[in-house]
Amino acid sequence: MLKTTKQSKPSSWKNNLHEIIYEADTRAGKFFDVILLIAILASVLLVMLESVDSFDKKYHSFLNFSEWIITILFSLEYIARIISIKKPLKYIFSFYGIVDLLSTLPKYLSLFFIGSHHLAALRALRLLRIFRVLKLARYVGASNNLMTALKASKAKISVFLFFVFILCIILGTVMYMVEGEENGFTSIPRSVYWAIVTLTTVGYGDIAPHTPLGQFIASIIMILGYGIIAIPTGIVTSEMSKSKLSAIDTNTQSCKYCSAENHKDNSLYCYNCGNKL
Amino acid sequence: MLKTTKQSKPSSWKNNLHEIIYEADTRAGKFFDVILLIAILASVLLVMLESVDSFDKKYHSFLNFSEWIITILFSLEYIARIISIKKPLKYIFSFYGIVDLLSTLPKYLSLFFIGSHHLAALRALRLLRIFRVLKLARYVGASNNLMTALKASKAKISVFLFFVFILCIILGTVMYMVEGEENGFTSIPRSVYWAIVTLTTVGYGDIAPHTPLGQFIASIIMILGYGIIAIPTGIVTSEMSKSKLSAIDTNTQSCKYCSAENHKDNSLYCYNCGNKL
Amino acid sequence: MLKTTKQSKPSSWKNNLHEIIYEADTRAGKFFDVILLIAILASVLLVMLESVDSFDKKYHSFLNFSEWIITILFSLEYIARIISIKKPLKYIFSFYGIVDLLSTLPKYLSLFFIGSHHLAALRALRLLRIFRVLKLARYVGASNNLMTALKASKAKISVFLFFVFILCIILGTVMYMVEGEENGFTSIPRSVYWAIVTLTTVGYGDIAPHTPLGQFIASIIMILGYGIIAIPTGIVTSEMSKSKLSAIDTNTQSCKYCSAENHKDNSLYCYNCGNKL
Amino acid sequence: MLKTTKQSKPSSWKNNLHEIIYEADTRAGKFFDVILLIAILASVLLVMLESVDSFDKKYHSFLNFSEWIITILFSLEYIARIISIKKPLKYIFSFYGIVDLLSTLPKYLSLFFIGSHHLAALRALRLLRIFRVLKLARYVGASNNLMTALKASKAKISVFLFFVFILCIILGTVMYMVEGEENGFTSIPRSVYWAIVTLTTVGYGDIAPHTPLGQFIASIIMILGYGIIAIPTGIVTSEMSKSKLSAIDTNTQSCKYCSAENHKDNSLYCYNCGNKL
Repeated sequence: MLKTTKQSKPSSWKNNLHEIIYEADTRAGKFFDVILLIAILASVLLVMLESVDSFDKKYHSFLNFSEWIITILFSLEYIARIISIKKPLKYIFSFYGIVDLLSTLPKYLSLFFIGSHHLAALRALRLLRIFRVLKLARYVGASNNLMTALKASKAKISVFLFFVFILCIILGTVMYMVEGEENGFTSIPRSVYWAIVTLTTVGYGDIAPHTPLGQFIASIIMILGYGIIAIPTGIVTSEMSKSKLSAIDTNTQSCKYCSAENHKDNSLYCYNCGNKL
Repeated sequence: MLKTTKQSKPSSWKNNLHEIIYEADTRAGKFFDVILLIAILASVLLVMLESVDSFDKKYHSFLNFSEWIITILFSLEYIARIISIKKPLKYIFSFYGIVDLLSTLPKYLSLFFIGSHHLAALRALRLLRIFRVLKLARYVGASNNLMTALKASKAKISVFLFFVFILCIILGTVMYMVEGEENGFTSIPRSVYWAIVTLTTVGYGDIAPHTPLGQFIASIIMILGYGIIAIPTGIVTSEMSKSKLSAIDTNTQSCKYCSAENHKDNSLYCYNCGNKL
Repeated sequence: MLKTTKQSKPSSWKNNLHEIIYEADTRAGKFFDVILLIAILASVLLVMLESVDSFDKKYHSFLNFSEWIITILFSLEYIARIISIKKPLKYIFSFYGIVDLLSTLPKYLSLFFIGSHHLAALRALRLLRIFRVLKLARYVGASNNLMTALKASKAKISVFLFFVFILCIILGTVMYMVEGEENGFTSIPRSVYWAIVTLTTVGYGDIAPHTPLGQFIASIIMILGYGIIAIPTGIVTSEMSKSKLSAIDTNTQSCKYCSAENHKDNSLYCYNCGNKL
Repeated sequence: MLKTTKQSKPSSWKNNLHEIIYEADTRAGKFFDVILLIAILASVLLVMLESVDSFDKKYHSFLNFSEWIITILFSLEYIARIISIKKPLKYIFSFYGIVDLLSTLPKYLSLFFIGSHHLAALRALRLLRIFRVLKLARYVGASNNLMTALKASKAKISVFLFFVFILCIILGTVMYMVEGEENGFTSIPRSVYWAIVTLTTVGYGDIAPHTPLGQFIASIIMILGYGIIAIPTGIVTSEMSKSKLSAIDTNTQSCKYCSAENHKDNSLYCYNCGNKL
């Protein structure tokens, strides 16, 4: 069987497997990806329902059984991914490789450590594949665009968050001294926690100032926080205005050799390792 | 009776009705629309007051009676709208057509299902007609302008909200494992709910972390949320800066044949079906 | 006595009074304004302290006495302002004229209506004069600039807030039906209030959803609110980026005839009524 | 010993000390700065842990002892900084000079005033040195850039916050009259505090309106606050879009004579006092 449409290399079952698992251009590949996404969604729901006591009591054995089936399927998929790729190590240590592993491990670990199966919720990260699968050019473009703007503003945002953190330590300490333990500010770390809750305008209300001076200082912190929130917004916005929506690649192929993605639409060779796609 | 001012077609009571109901250019049309808006406002208030126990006990029969009168008036208006238009199906399945139907149905349904009459609050959506009625060019323009910017940033906002949702699932699971059931984090779905409440800086305080580690993670989530809120703002702003306030149409006519709206100010034929306006 | 420095009109005590009260260019005018601001600040503090029970009990007669003195002084100032201006009616019905009147009335009214003296806190609005007095060109310019941007985006912001309000009515009704009275959602108006508290990310926590479905809907509202908050910001920002910081006038004179303000720096005649300044 | 690499002045132990303490270009200087940062971090953690009752009870003597050691080390460092600089007064009254002093004083004061040692948390401000030490050009640039934009928008932000404050006084007074003492609005200052909590969307929930009219007014305040938050963001963003990322200096040297920092990368003389670096 010789397949020359897209690959000039002699086609083998490994190549076919690679095309099905890693790409969404062929019919089989797309079908596989959609099934996979449904399985991921189902498994995330399973983990969530398992944690609800009333549900778990009624359907414990069913939930446990389904969970085992999904875990085994995911394990098989993980092995298939390693086999079908030319450079398995690159996949294993890539973001998706680690996430795929973390999606199967917790259930096995739960045999030894009680409670560790909750970590299976990390599978939710696998849902990020949805953008690739749906071939939503706009979405992939939008996401790349977002990333570029965020990367460009990383330095400024870091400086900003560092300032905010130092500010919260100092404000928390001041409030600890003003309000004292009898008003819920039982320690400096707890007061710093309160300062963060207030400055970010979350405002749980589990700790709140009671003395007039404390409320006065809190008011200043809030108005400060109201002004401060403008800063990250200003950073991201000005960065985003700069970034241009340049050519967006909708190619969902990934290299068999180095598993690099985001190839140009009509590229024949991998931009990363030079091998044929 | 021949009317050649705006329409060359032989004028009939259907045409007159169409002009009164669907347009706000003539005196009668404007009068009808203003009366309609007042009736909508009154009916929304009625539904709200009906739900207040102390009010309902005192004036139950009055509220019920008024509600029936308004429902019947709205039903008649709905029938008139269907009769006077050339292509009734197009209206029936349009946004306003569905809203108009939903404004009358709940009261009839309340004869069979108790409580369903509260759905009549959906009438509030009919209030959106206000911009058309008041012929506020600026407002119509502003609203179109807003829509253009929002549509352009839809892809990016979707990617963003999807990320936020996955983030909340993972953070919620982590907090469920850290805080546990004794601190109110009774299940993963509930913890995810808490994560959303925190990340969006709503912060009810009905669930709040109690352990030092939980408060530490919560602090990180809050500061994260503080930074994350900058992203949708950046997206919308950069999109809005791009969009230009082009020609704004203040024409409130709508086509008799296809009920298309937003015609150019001095257009004689429908841009959609080519018939005379 | 002839004064030709700034005014060619025969100078009189009225002219002098006008210059002292309405302008901050001369020494006497500046002195008057600073004294006035201190008096306003003191009176606002008085009203606030009067409402604190523990304070009022101790110093009731002192607070009451001071309040009367300040009220009488403000009344005299109000009369002086009316006398010294050429067109008193224009001043009386201007924003500052109404505020000045409202600063004195409550105390007199308190002789007849108990509690009305709290309205004296409206005096705080008089503090807005501070920008004029301090001749802070930058601040006046900044404030004009802000106003221009806000006026330009008024139409869009109105449309936006109207949408938000309709949205809250519908979401409130849905939550009223989902959660019901046993969970604190006792009526539709109260549920609408909750929807506003949630959508604006205030989140008091006095009303919070308890059923899983309610929490699910609430989560969607919050994420929606997180995205929606980007809209007004986007509007104001794009408007503000457009507006240019053109010439800023630091002239604090105001016309004797029509009390128009914001004259160009070296203007000799009122831009509004054509009379000499 | 003559050192001509960077300074033509006869090298002395003072010069060496200056280079180690104030600069991060040499190996010794960098080493010193890293050790210092670790010490600062440790000391901030110490102060925080000391305030936690359960910790303090167990390890009181250890915490106290460590605190004394760090205080003495910081004191020695402070003295070394004064000795090694040519114009000590300039350092003493600089921002970092005051922070450095405040980092040591509280522990000494705690001998006389109980509780004052908590002020040692002000040491957190010393952590701001981290940007200089790590020679993170991007971060220093980002921070300068941020500062420029913030300074440019200072006037507008001040006007805005002043408006917000006056608004809160008036809204607080209205709510005090509407809700009254029985609903938690016990005084005008407390109601103003509530208005600030609400307008800034913090929303603790410790005070919340109970009457329908109060909830209606609160709803308006919240929607207002939702719109108002757009203003500072708009200001900072438009300012930030204007500011250009001009040349960023990564030089960490500081002048021996006037302790000016931020020298151009290849500058040989201090831009401030003209002396050799």
